[in-house]
Amino acid sequence: MQLVIGNKNYSSWSMRPWVLLTHFGIPFQEQMLYFDHFQPGSQFSASAAQHSPTARVPVLVEDDGFSTWDSLAIAERVADLFPQHPVWPREARARARARTLAATMHSGFGDLRRLCPMNIEADLRAVGERLLTEHPTLRADLQRLQALWEPELQARGGPWLMGAEFGAVDAYFAPVAMRVTRYGLPLGERCMAYVRALEAHAAVQAWVAGALAEQRFVPDDEPYRSAPGEAPR
Amino acid sequence: MQLVIGNKNYSSWSMRPWVLLTHFGIPFQEQMLYFDHFQPGSQFSASAAQHSPTARVPVLVEDDGFSTWDSLAIAERVADLFPQHPVWPREARARARARTLAATMHSGFGDLRRLCPMNIEADLRAVGERLLTEHPTLRADLQRLQALWEPELQARGGPWLMGAEFGAVDAYFAPVAMRVTRYGLPLGERCMAYVRALEAHAAVQAWVAGALAEQRFVPDDEPYRSAPGEAPR
Repeated sequence: MQLVIGNKNYSSWSMRPWVLLTHFGIPFQEQMLYFDHFQPGSQFSASAAQHSPTARVPVLVEDDGFSTWDSLAIAERVADLFPQHPVWPREARARARARTLAATMHSGFGDLRRLCPMNIEADLRAVGERLLTEHPTLRADLQRLQALWEPELQARGGPWLMGAEFGAVDAYFAPVAMRVTRYGLPLGERCMAYVRALEAHAAVQAWVAGALAEQRFVPDDEPYRSAPGEAPR
Repeated sequence: MQLVIGNKNYSSWSMRPWVLLTHFGIPFQEQMLYFDHFQPGSQFSASAAQHSPTARVPVLVEDDGFSTWDSLAIAERVADLFPQHPVWPREARARARARTLAATMHSGFGDLRRLCPMNIEADLRAVGERLLTEHPTLRADLQRLQALWEPELQARGGPWLMGAEFGAVDAYFAPVAMRVTRYGLPLGERCMAYVRALEAHAAVQAWVAGALAEQRFVPDDEPYRSAPGEAPR
């Protein structure tokens, strides 16, 4: 089984299934397609198009070539293929709620995603401070995030969204934790504890180590820097 | 069980679970929250916030108040609650593919959604013709749609995406069929046959009848008209 992904520093969608598979110790081969640019005719798109009609990552490619693209569908496919692992909670309502939170992230939080693209190796706290002042929609997205997480963390006692067990929904929010810390975005104490738990998770740390080792600056993924060492603005 | 929805004329996300539940004959009460506007402080948002932290529709509310919001999570919840119905295909790979297609719609096709918002009672073919000329990104979205549908329709022989049985993935694309016909968007013959099959589906027709009966013009959902009878531009 192969997981086709993009740059670990930037590809938030790739991070989700990678962290999920790694957490459960499910063996897979990683196939990296490095981003070049996002204009038509990119090498990245041409390579990605070999695995899915969307020409995007991530894609889960099984040994006979059967492919599942889209991070959420991959989580469901992994749950189907490996029922021994609690990819989604065993309890039906916790499962429904976990899927609800993951799906809400999947189709929403457009301003958080657009204004604060994942950039693991960068310190963008000064940028984050400015963005929070300038964009009420970003503040609204953070309030929505807090409103999603807080009741679950409170009701189930953490450390993960659905309680004691880490699952697909937590893998889904791992890139959000990266954004919160890199851009210095404010959340309440309980939510920040969850962000710290995600940061300390072994599979997340393994992904971050890969991101830091990459050293590939992609201008199209860098709205706030024109070179790696430069102070962001 | 209640399904909280928005205007049938405009709410493409609400249409999906409504068509799904109706298709399988699963009893539910419909709770309509009419759109007023999308600025802060709308009555719609205040009402929707009583059912979900996202303050959006659709929301599935079970009899004791347990709620599942987001159309994709609702499909999964319905599949869990009513295993007697093939909400997703029984065969594992068809199921994976159906989820992949639904998830691709769920997080993508931003330009199709933004430029051609669902508006069932309107004839927007002149607008569609202009949009297709002006927006290469809309043409790209249509090509992506064709690339998603065509192989499945060809491999399984239709009339539905996964073959003989209508399921959640088809309910997912029902609002897309509305856009294709209302804006006169071009697709290949096999895909147009699928659009016609969706249009002729009993649950889709029931939703459309409700939309036509509404007669509520919502300016924030009308980028191309300033009054119901007016020629769109």
